[in-house]
Amino acid sequence: MEPIDLWFSIGSLYTYLTASRVGRVEQETGIRFRWRPFSVRTIMLEMDNVPVKQPIKLAYAWRDVERRAAMYGVPFRTRPPYPLKNSDLANRIATVAANEGWCADYVRVCYRGWFQDGHEAGSEPNISPTLHEIGQDAARVLPLAQSEDTGRALAAATDEARRLGIFGVPTFATRGEIFWGDDRLDDAIRWHRKGALVP
Amino acid sequence: MEPIDLWFSIGSLYTYLTASRVGRVEQETGIRFRWRPFSVRTIMLEMDNVPVKQPIKLAYAWRDVERRAAMYGVPFRTRPPYPLKNSDLANRIATVAANEGWCADYVRVCYRGWFQDGHEAGSEPNISPTLHEIGQDAARVLPLAQSEDTGRALAAATDEARRLGIFGVPTFATRGEIFWGDDRLDDAIRWHRKGALVP
Repeated sequence: MEPIDLWFSIGSLYTYLTASRVGRVEQETGIRFRWRPFSVRTIMLEMDNVPVKQPIKLAYAWRDVERRAAMYGVPFRTRPPYPLKNSDLANRIATVAANEGWCADYVRVCYRGWFQDGHEAGSEPNISPTLHEIGQDAARVLPLAQSEDTGRALAAATDEARRLGIFGVPTFATRGEIFWGDDRLDDAIRWHRKGALVP
Repeated sequence: MEPIDLWFSIGSLYTYLTASRVGRVEQETGIRFRWRPFSVRTIMLEMDNVPVKQPIKLAYAWRDVERRAAMYGVPFRTRPPYPLKNSDLANRIATVAANEGWCADYVRVCYRGWFQDGHEAGSEPNISPTLHEIGQDAARVLPLAQSEDTGRALAAATDEARRLGIFGVPTFATRGEIFWGDDRLDDAIRWHRKGALVP
């Protein structure tokens, strides 16, 4: 069976839930997810959709993530730093990771450092410990992440996401449909299996 | 057991799903929902959160509602007129209805006319047939809905919603927490029962 495309950007709150539980979902369902990093920030700025301009909605989102983390058995201790100062670098590394096949581990460990230890994704002391833990050499990965080729690949992925009508993350794409939000993961799985949400 | 407060405005897309299925949920769970009409439009304008300014997101929302309507067995045939020309009158009538105890029927039938027959809520030929079907006298209800008292009650409900941190509809409120979206109905029920989302 084809994988479900998991479009995401590091920097998103709700992607923490997905990054933390999608491995378990893969085991339970036998469905594979293909990690597709892009810059949702670029698309959201184009749409003038800026979370920090909506403090009431953002406060709700934090509480919603906290409650749902407990539901999924995902740790949520303290309010992590937000927004990220350097989401671009975090997503450039994800682009390298997706290309080389270690993206699931990278995103999971990166988000764990950010949300559980308070170490901001895309900055130190998150980048180096994350790469070290998953067996990647920072001295090789970082120049590659910062290369023009990687910048072009990230921009191309952002263009592809825009063409698909994606405007937020995580978004699951399967069979020509998109499903926005960690809370649409079950819908995406149903659609992937049956082309319908009917149980 | 206390009811769950169901904060809503007629005019919202997703409230169609809730209006169509909450009666069944009440029967299945034994939990009662208290209909709380307010003007979410007022709050969204304050936040500069205007759906028609976000056409890509709005197109997705229609598709999401369509898919989920099928999941719930709720009819969804054609794209209903949107946005409403006169949501204020629809919500003034809801305010009278909530005060007098016939709000669930009013909202369900009003939304059915809007989404299934394409008759815009808050305008004719939606208002009169809806009131007639649920056994209400339009000649009595309409002047009451347009009265200053009802305007003040709707504004007071909007103030209360704002104080609760509500910024979208439907929102379910129970035990000091708010749950935004038709897709958070299950979360609200869990919280109502246990004060937690853990199954």
